[in-house]
Amino acid sequence: MIIKVLRLGHRKARDARITTHVCLTARAFGASEVIITGEDDKRLIENVDDVTERWGGPFRVSYQKDWKKILKEWKGEIIHLTMYGIPIQDIIKKIKESNKDKLVIVGGPRVPGEIFKLADFNVAVTNQPHSEVSALAVFLHMFFEGKELEKRFENPKIEVIPSKSGKKIRESKI
Amino acid sequence: MIIKVLRLGHRKARDARITTHVCLTARAFGASEVIITGEDDKRLIENVDDVTERWGGPFRVSYQKDWKKILKEWKGEIIHLTMYGIPIQDIIKKIKESNKDKLVIVGGPRVPGEIFKLADFNVAVTNQPHSEVSALAVFLHMFFEGKELEKRFENPKIEVIPSKSGKKIRESKI
Repeated sequence: MIIKVLRLGHRKARDARITTHVCLTARAFGASEVIITGEDDKRLIENVDDVTERWGGPFRVSYQKDWKKILKEWKGEIIHLTMYGIPIQDIIKKIKESNKDKLVIVGGPRVPGEIFKLADFNVAVTNQPHSEVSALAVFLHMFFEGKELEKRFENPKIEVIPSKSGKKIRESKI
Repeated sequence: MIIKVLRLGHRKARDARITTHVCLTARAFGASEVIITGEDDKRLIENVDDVTERWGGPFRVSYQKDWKKILKEWKGEIIHLTMYGIPIQDIIKKIKESNKDKLVIVGGPRVPGEIFKLADFNVAVTNQPHSEVSALAVFLHMFFEGKELEKRFENPKIEVIPSKSGKKIRESKI
């Protein structure tokens, strides 16, 4: 099963860091791809690709102008993370029942009302205002039941060696 | 037991949104307070206080200049979230054994080496680069074992009514 993330309504000047955190969270927690809509942002995509290049893949990030086209062409299920949705603890079991690919949508404050209708599931990671970054992380963590924490990436040039009290890394000499 | 979050090295121009997301994540996932160090940022603190005022508390956010003083005066345990630390799945059980108050430290890219030594636990929410926002959310989620998702806040002026496909809120008339 493939998990892709759709980041709606990116604004280059305002959202660069938050969208970068969305992308890196998607990668670290087991999604295979992020598609960014809103404003194109080549530098952001380069930065994320650079992390994948150094820390391992596979992971893709790309820009597409039209979110409607993406949703129209998507063959799997659509999960929209929103504080207005059904509490994740009440719906996650149902979401996990199906083996269909998942498109996980994260937006900003102004998500078009259509998205709520097009989504198979509108899911709230708490019904409180916080962050699309946290919502995505906890959604993926609950979806993968913690197994994402054991994920190994392919062909890393650099890896952390877990340490009690310092910074240890291993770098390949390629 | 009290869980406080210490946000190290805030930079007003660059980190305003990320630090705001750290604060809102701390609140939504059951911490009682965030202390910000680095640059003072009154507007950020007002914004977070405004969320607490509307969505309910109790939750505090404050600025202190000197992180060393905070750590020196802290009587409980210190947990530093860092990608270089021990994987959370290997250490969370041990962290939960003690009833002492917890100070959870989140930093940015350049955390002073001293913090690694002063922490009782250096904890990695994956050993991959991603986001202090995700790391904090998943740490609190694992620490509270999902119970934080049921948390109710006191005296909210506004509450979400969870909905399958729309935005429903309840506002008090005070």
